Amino acid sequence: MIEIKSSRQLLTEEQFVESLKRIGERKYHDKHPFHTRMHEGSLSKEEMQRWIANRYYYQKCLPVKDSLVMSKLPERSDRIKWRERIVDHDGRAEDDGGILAWLNFAEAAGIDQSQLLDGKLFLPGVVFAVDAYVNYCRNSEWWLAVASSLTEIFAPTLVSYRIEVIERHYPWIDRQGLTYFRNRLHQAPRDSQHGLALVLKAADTYEKQHLALKAVEFKCDVLWSMLDAIDRAEDG
Amino acid sequence: MIEIKSSRQLLTEEQFVESLKRIGERKYHDKHPFHTRMHEGSLSKEEMQRWIANRYYYQKCLPVKDSLVMSKLPERSDRIKWRERIVDHDGRAEDDGGILAWLNFAEAAGIDQSQLLDGKLFLPGVVFAVDAYVNYCRNSEWWLAVASSLTEIFAPTLVSYRIEVIERHYPWIDRQGLTYFRNRLHQAPRDSQHGLALVLKAADTYEKQHLALKAVEFKCDVLWSMLDAIDRAEDG
Repeated sequence: MIEIKSSRQLLTEEQFVESLKRIGERKYHDKHPFHTRMHEGSLSKEEMQRWIANRYYYQKCLPVKDSLVMSKLPERSDRIKWRERIVDHDGRAEDDGGILAWLNFAEAAGIDQSQLLDGKLFLPGVVFAVDAYVNYCRNSEWWLAVASSLTEIFAPTLVSYRIEVIERHYPWIDRQGLTYFRNRLHQAPRDSQHGLALVLKAADTYEKQHLALKAVEFKCDVLWSMLDAIDRAEDG
Repeated sequence: MIEIKSSRQLLTEEQFVESLKRIGERKYHDKHPFHTRMHEGSLSKEEMQRWIANRYYYQKCLPVKDSLVMSKLPERSDRIKWRERIVDHDGRAEDDGGILAWLNFAEAAGIDQSQLLDGKLFLPGVVFAVDAYVNYCRNSEWWLAVASSLTEIFAPTLVSYRIEVIERHYPWIDRQGLTYFRNRLHQAPRDSQHGLALVLKAADTYEKQHLALKAVEFKCDVLWSMLDAIDRAEDG
């Protein structure tokens, strides 16, 4: 739950970011037990593979989500900036981009590419959560769709730590496969700054700011539910 | 109406393109009385300005429509290609692209930029027709949304003629403003080839091909209705 101030005064940028960070501290998926185990190095190979394979469904849907968000942005200049997210994931050419980088990561972790590409490794709970995210962005006000992406503010710290963790605890994953995470280290901060500026401009009442923070909570729930499904699945 | 063959056999690529061309010969907007008058050089300055200003609403909505179509394309490689349409219209940077080129065209034709940007020059009939097109692409099957873009097959001939016509009959329009049309001469053929390949692959029954041709007719109706509204409006 987000704390509702009795004053209902518009939050300053600093206060809004502070509220965002409090959500992150409570609900971002690095707090999930599965994630904690990942960072402790105690996931089995099967669990790690299950996470990588299922997260691929999320990666695959990002340019779809971002195309939908881009279709809603009121300004051409903002579409141009948002387009960079699509370029990052789809690539500038067929042999490039984040989706392919994640596939390389999966390959580095010994996951069967044809099973992955056929969608046979995706858990229903993961598909439902990711589709809920895409549909949220399809159906909601543009600035709420943008707000839901603001979990990117929490991402860089986690991602840089993740590189370390994988190298240390999961040495059976080929380090060549970590390009995806290295690229995200500079992409995510650029994206989140643009997203934050858009939301701060559009959410011009306390009530709208509150809705924007709820959108971030929703996105945290999406990421959390994915880990729930991955955590509870049995190795097949 | 599209002629329905009793055989219901899948059309060959050649037959499909032939059917497309027959639609173009009958329904493409160059057959509209307003367009005929444009090409004869008999539009008044006010009429020409009204066309340019209202067509701007269409131009402005193209990247929105293309973002929606891109969000539906099943293959990453097709999204990469489709993205070029968005780049063409939105630009690679803020000072670039088709929307800006159309604004320059409007300026070259002496149209008040602030009135144009405020949307005060858009006729309701034009807005309804363009929005119908965007909503068609938002709501229909991806290959029908793609099919509706196939009017681009008819465009290059018209566009190259249009450059001539404007230079000859409307000399009060600064020739510097014609960049938009010059760019379209190479963009439209590239786009329509990709669109055609996608539709031919997806429409794998005669019935689907028939629906794809109906989508092209729908798009012709959009362009035609825009000219109806522009033709009937009174100078205000």
